[in-house]
Amino acid sequence: MISWKNLDTLAACGKLANVKKVNLAEAMTGENGAKRVEEYCVPMAANLKYNFAAKAVDGGTLEALQALADEAQLTEKYAALYNGEVINTGEKRRVLHQLTRGQLGEAVVADGVDKRAFYVGEQQKAAAFAKKVHSGEVTNAKGEKFTTVVQIGIGGSDLGPRAMYLALEQWAKQNDTLKMEARFISNVDPDDAAAVLKSIDVSRSLFVLVSKSGTTLETLTNEAFVKDALKNAGLDASRHMVAVTSETSPLAKSSDYLAAFFMDDFIGGRYSSTSCVGGVVLSLAFGPEVFERFLSGAHAADETAKNPDIMKNPAMLDALIGVYERNVLGYPATAVLPYSQALSRFPAHLQQLDMESNGKSVNRFGEPVSYVTGPVIFGEPGTNGQHSFYQLLHQGTDIVPLQFVGFKKNQAGMDVDIQGSTSQQKLCANVAAQIMAFACGKKDDNPNKAFAGGRPSSIIVGDQLTPEALGALLAHFENKVMFQGFCWNVNSFDQEGVQLGKVLAKRVLAHDTDGALKAYSDMLDI
Amino acid sequence: MISWKNLDTLAACGKLANVKKVNLAEAMTGENGAKRVEEYCVPMAANLKYNFAAKAVDGGTLEALQALADEAQLTEKYAALYNGEVINTGEKRRVLHQLTRGQLGEAVVADGVDKRAFYVGEQQKAAAFAKKVHSGEVTNAKGEKFTTVVQIGIGGSDLGPRAMYLALEQWAKQNDTLKMEARFISNVDPDDAAAVLKSIDVSRSLFVLVSKSGTTLETLTNEAFVKDALKNAGLDASRHMVAVTSETSPLAKSSDYLAAFFMDDFIGGRYSSTSCVGGVVLSLAFGPEVFERFLSGAHAADETAKNPDIMKNPAMLDALIGVYERNVLGYPATAVLPYSQALSRFPAHLQQLDMESNGKSVNRFGEPVSYVTGPVIFGEPGTNGQHSFYQLLHQGTDIVPLQFVGFKKNQAGMDVDIQGSTSQQKLCANVAAQIMAFACGKKDDNPNKAFAGGRPSSIIVGDQLTPEALGALLAHFENKVMFQGFCWNVNSFDQEGVQLGKVLAKRVLAHDTDGALKAYSDMLDI
Repeated sequence: MISWKNLDTLAACGKLANVKKVNLAEAMTGENGAKRVEEYCVPMAANLKYNFAAKAVDGGTLEALQALADEAQLTEKYAALYNGEVINTGEKRRVLHQLTRGQLGEAVVADGVDKRAFYVGEQQKAAAFAKKVHSGEVTNAKGEKFTTVVQIGIGGSDLGPRAMYLALEQWAKQNDTLKMEARFISNVDPDDAAAVLKSIDVSRSLFVLVSKSGTTLETLTNEAFVKDALKNAGLDASRHMVAVTSETSPLAKSSDYLAAFFMDDFIGGRYSSTSCVGGVVLSLAFGPEVFERFLSGAHAADETAKNPDIMKNPAMLDALIGVYERNVLGYPATAVLPYSQALSRFPAHLQQLDMESNGKSVNRFGEPVSYVTGPVIFGEPGTNGQHSFYQLLHQGTDIVPLQFVGFKKNQAGMDVDIQGSTSQQKLCANVAAQIMAFACGKKDDNPNKAFAGGRPSSIIVGDQLTPEALGALLAHFENKVMFQGFCWNVNSFDQEGVQLGKVLAKRVLAHDTDGALKAYSDMLDI
Repeated sequence: MISWKNLDTLAACGKLANVKKVNLAEAMTGENGAKRVEEYCVPMAANLKYNFAAKAVDGGTLEALQALADEAQLTEKYAALYNGEVINTGEKRRVLHQLTRGQLGEAVVADGVDKRAFYVGEQQKAAAFAKKVHSGEVTNAKGEKFTTVVQIGIGGSDLGPRAMYLALEQWAKQNDTLKMEARFISNVDPDDAAAVLKSIDVSRSLFVLVSKSGTTLETLTNEAFVKDALKNAGLDASRHMVAVTSETSPLAKSSDYLAAFFMDDFIGGRYSSTSCVGGVVLSLAFGPEVFERFLSGAHAADETAKNPDIMKNPAMLDALIGVYERNVLGYPATAVLPYSQALSRFPAHLQQLDMESNGKSVNRFGEPVSYVTGPVIFGEPGTNGQHSFYQLLHQGTDIVPLQFVGFKKNQAGMDVDIQGSTSQQKLCANVAAQIMAFACGKKDDNPNKAFAGGRPSSIIVGDQLTPEALGALLAHFENKVMFQGFCWNVNSFDQEGVQLGKVLAKRVLAHDTDGALKAYSDMLDI
C-alpha cells in the first residue's frame, strides 16, 4: 500500500539530517580518495557509470539515504507509475513516457487501447514515413528529395529534441547516418523563424509541427509564418508539413499535413523526447534505426531504475544525494557540466525537465510544503565553462553541487596531438582535475589564491556518446527528477505555474488591461 | 580620498537592512502600480530605458540605496578606474576597457603610451584590415574573397564576441551589412572544431586566433587543429590567419599570421568585447562602421554611469538593487531573460561577466568577507523560457529576481498576423504579462493554481536591437558588475579561481598523479 507523505514527516528524513557530515576534502585526500573513486561507482545502462566519490557522503549517509528511499517507497511509486496508475493527480493523468521505449511492468490499457502498442505503432509509422522520405518516395512537388527537416515547437517540443539532435549530429556524420539536417523554430519572436528560413532551402525542407493540444500559440504562429514563406516561394505548404499532436487535437485530421503522428495526454512535454515528439524529427535526421538504439538505451536505464538497492540504482541514488544537498546541506542550485560539445544544449533541456517538474511549493494534495523543493539548474559544456563561471563555483560564497558528464572517446574522429597529448586527453584531464580541485581545494598563504574545497560533484562517464548512451543519459535524469518529486511529495508532471502569464498575455493582446499591466503595454507599444 | 571598505562596515548598509520592506504585489496593484511604471523608469544610453517598477523598492529603499552609493563612493571609485588607477590590485593592473570606446576622464598614460590612442589605433588597424578583406585586396592564395570569419578563442575571447555577433547577425542581414558569416571555435573537445570545420569552406575562411597571453592551451590546440585542416586542404595556413593578442605575447611577431592586432593587460577577457578581441571579428562580419556604432552605444552608457544620482544612473541603480536583493533579501540567483532571439547567448556572456567578476570570497585586500557576494546568473530567451523553467520561477520555493530585456521592433522585418496580432506584439505582450504575473501573482481556491507573487523583476526596453543599443546594453551590465564589486569590496577584475584546475590538469597530462586524481585519470583512460 503506497502512502504519499511529505518529506519532513518521514522518520528517515529526520535521521538523515542528523547523520554525521562528511569532510569532503579530507575524504578525497590520499589513498582513501582513490578507494572512494573505486567504490563509489555505480554501473548505469549503456556502459555508463555514475561515480559519486566526490559527493559529501559516506557509509553512514548512504545508509540513511537507503532508509529514506525505503520509507518514501520510491520503488513502489515508480512501479505504480509504470503500471499505469494516475500519478499526475492534478491533471488526473497517467504518466507513461517510459512506455514509449519499453514495457516495464503490466500492460497499461486505457480506453481499451494497450498504450505500449499505441506508442510502438506511432513510432513505426514515423519510421516508415522517414524511410519514404529518405528513399525519395515522399518528395516535394518537383520530385526532389527533402534535405532538411525543421521542427516547429516550443518547450518540451523543442528543448529535448533539439538537445538530442545536437548530441548525435557529429556522431551521425561520422557514422554516415546523417540523412537530413535538422533545424528548430521555437520562439514567438519573428526573428527566430526568419533566421532559420533564411538559412535553408525551403523548397527542399520538411516541417514538423509539434503541439500536443494543437493550440500552442507560439507554435501556431510560427506555422503561419512558415506557411507564408512557403506560399511566397510558390510552394504548396501541405506537401511540406507533417504534424505531431494528440488524436483529439484540431491538427489530427487536417488535410494541411502530409501525415500526422500521435502522442497522448500521458506524455508530458518535457518527457516527450522518446515519443514521436522526438521520434519524427530524429528518425528523419538520423534514420529510424538510430532512433531505436536511442530508445533501447533509455529503456535499459528505466529497467535499472527499478532496483530498490540504491547502490544498484544510479538514478535513485543521484536523486537522494540531491535531496540531501538541497534539504539538509541547503544548497540552492545545481550546475550540469558536460565535457562534450555535443551536449551543448543538454543543460537547457535538463533545466526544463528539472525546474518545471519540481519547482513547486505545494504537495500532490495541493497543500503548501514547508521545505525547499527543486533547485535552480544551469550549465554549459566544459572546458568552456572553466573560462567563464567556474570562478564563482570555486571561490564564490555559495556552494553549488556539480554534475559532470564525460566520455573517453570523441564523436567526430578528428584530433590533434599538441604538447604531448590529444585534444580529447586534454578534455578528460580537465574534468578529472576539476573534480579534485572542487573537492580538495588548495591552501595558500595568499587567501585570494586559496581554494576552500568541499564543493561536491559527481560524474557520469561513458566510452562515447552513442545513441544508446544518450538514451540512457536522458532517462537517468528523467528518473532522477521523478524520484526527487516522490521524495518531495510534489506532482512532477503538471505545470500550473505557466498558466497565469498566458492568461495575462491574452488580456494584453485584447487590450483588456488597466493599472500597471496597461502601463507596461503602453511602454512596449502593444 | 577613496577608502575601500567592506559592505558590512558601512553605516548605510545597516540602515538599508532596516528599511521597511515593500509588499511588491500590493505596490503593483491598481493605479499605484501604473504610477510606479511611469516613475520608476530611468533613461539609458541609446534610447533604452531601465524600468524597475516591479522591484521591491520604494522611496525609502531608494533613499537608503543612494546613501549606500554615496558612502561606498561608487562614483569616485569609477572615476579612479577610468582615470587609470590600479584598481585590479591582485594583479596590479589598471582596468581600462572603457577606454576602448571613449575617453571618460583624464588621459591615461602607461609606459609613455596614451592608452586611448593605443586602443583607437588598434581599432583603426582592424577597420583597415577588414576593408581590405571586404574589397578583395586581401584574399586567399587563389585570389578569391574570404566569405567566412572563424574566431578561435575561449572564455572572454569567445562568449562576448559570439553573443554580440548573434545579436546583430539578423539586423545586419536586414540592413545589407553582413559582409562575412562568423563562426566560433572554443572548446578543447575536438568535436567542436570538427563540427565548425565541416560546416564551412576552409579555403574561403579567415581565422582569428585570440589569446591575450598567447599561451591559452585550448586556443593553441584549436589553432593546431585548424592548421592541420588547412594543410590537409592544400592551403597555406599563414594566409588564412590573423592574431589578436598582447604585444608581448609569442604570437605578436610571428610570421604565421597575416596580421596581428593588440590588446593589453588592462583589458580583462570578459570585458574585451569592445577591444580588438571583439573588434576584429565584428568588423570583418559587419563592417567597421557597425562596430563603431556599437562602441558609441557603449561609450554613451559609460558616460551615464558617471552620474552620482542613482535615479539618473541605471547601471548604479541596477547594481544597488541587486546588492539589496542578495544581501538583505537573501536571494541566491538572478535570471536574465531577453525577449529577443538575437540575444540567445547574451545570458551566457553575462554569466561569465558577472560570476567570474564577483564570485569571490575575499575582499580586495585578500581578507575573507562575511557576507555573500555574486549570485548565480542564468537565463534563456523568452518566450522559450516560459515553456521551460518559468514554472519554478513562478511557483518554486526560492525567489529568483529577474532581469527582462525587450524591444518594440524586431530585427529581420518579417512578421505574420495571427489571431489579431503580430508575432512581435505577442512577444511584447508576453513580457508585460510575465512581469505582472511575477509581481502580483493570483489567488486561487486551488493552491496548486495559486501564485504567491512578490517575485521582483526589472526590464530594459528599447525600440530595436541596433548596434548602439547592443553597445549600451553590454556596457550597462559591465558597469553594473563593477559597481556591485565596489559595494562588496571585491576585486572584480582578477580570476584566481580558475588556476587550480589548470595546474591539476597539467599534472594529469604529465601522468604526475596519485590518489583520487590518479583514479579519476584511470577511469577516463587518460
